[in-house]
Amino acid sequence: MSVIDDKALVVLSGGQDSTTCLYWAIDRFGRDNVATLTFDYGQRHRVELECAANVAAHAGVRNECLPIDTFSALGGDALPDTEIDVDVAASSGLPNTFVPGRNIIFLTFAAAYAYQRDTRHLVTGVAQTDYSGYPDCREETIKALEATLRLGMESEVRIHTPLMRLSKKQTVEMARDLGGLDAMALTHTCYNGERPPCGRCPACELRARGFAEAGIEDPLLTA
Amino acid sequence: MSVIDDKALVVLSGGQDSTTCLYWAIDRFGRDNVATLTFDYGQRHRVELECAANVAAHAGVRNECLPIDTFSALGGDALPDTEIDVDVAASSGLPNTFVPGRNIIFLTFAAAYAYQRDTRHLVTGVAQTDYSGYPDCREETIKALEATLRLGMESEVRIHTPLMRLSKKQTVEMARDLGGLDAMALTHTCYNGERPPCGRCPACELRARGFAEAGIEDPLLTA
Repeated sequence: MSVIDDKALVVLSGGQDSTTCLYWAIDRFGRDNVATLTFDYGQRHRVELECAANVAAHAGVRNECLPIDTFSALGGDALPDTEIDVDVAASSGLPNTFVPGRNIIFLTFAAAYAYQRDTRHLVTGVAQTDYSGYPDCREETIKALEATLRLGMESEVRIHTPLMRLSKKQTVEMARDLGGLDAMALTHTCYNGERPPCGRCPACELRARGFAEAGIEDPLLTA
Repeated sequence: MSVIDDKALVVLSGGQDSTTCLYWAIDRFGRDNVATLTFDYGQRHRVELECAANVAAHAGVRNECLPIDTFSALGGDALPDTEIDVDVAASSGLPNTFVPGRNIIFLTFAAAYAYQRDTRHLVTGVAQTDYSGYPDCREETIKALEATLRLGMESEVRIHTPLMRLSKKQTVEMARDLGGLDAMALTHTCYNGERPPCGRCPACELRARGFAEAGIEDPLLTA
């Protein structure tokens, strides 16, 4: 695939998936065309923000952090609210880590930020394969949002979702193939916020399974 | 039109249009089914928040205010940034009151708030007739956003835009016909934040023309 000489913005959470997307973007657009944006939305584990900054520094790209205080004000979700346990199911049947429309908000703010910087390409690590009840991460939602943003900002914005149809195994392989494996030591995945990771929560288990299936040691565990 | 026994949330800015929409919603859904939501996004004129609260109290409906600190962090727009003059045109050709995607953000947060309260109907005062360069207020954008929110929240949310195709004259007439004229004395329109309104800014002029064409005295000016 040839490099596209156009600017791209990666929504970087500091986790495995968005870090893989960063290396995908560097491969596709060239390091000098890539920047990253992180949201400080009151997430339970503040270490994520630090991980995002460390990953971006390691990759040699700019990272900026934008605050969003609205989710905490809305309340009712596990990740921003430290008093709710992650594993308690919400009455909706969705996991209680679900902030309705959270990803729509992230991508819309990212599009606004990109708009101000003449950046047309957004990259996000959402995937529907490890589907965990987040309807705003599905391909049809992302396509509908892209159409909305193009109309609402009169822009040519494109939302890239390189992991959308990949298994965790394939995501690990992509990170390896794009030279992003070292950066995995800097990422954060554990729902319980532990470092080294707890190894027992669903996020740790999913990550471990991906690395195991790819036959690759997780640099986070050997760091 | 018969009353729909279903809950509605009006996005209330404290201005003329959203106040008219509040009376439209009360007429359509019944006062007990209507609540209002206001955003504190660092707007230049803090009086808007007070106006929204006063309008809601006058109408006998609940008003809640949600903070959004992200627009100020994004910067670059007239309304949230007190150091930029409103009438200086932005390089984009759009008025510099334009926050890209601002209305998409408002409606997405409103949809999340409504979702948490089993409220299906959102009402917003956007209009494309007095089109002032805001592509996120146009009908096609709102329709695309509605589709995105329905997918992304797995909800049956509906976005109502009762003023979309009305002239300012017709909006004034609607407020009168729905008993919302008294509330107009509590609203805020002036871009310069003056009370009584400056009468010279584009927002004051547009409002004055609407009342004049409807042959109705603006209660704000006689209050």
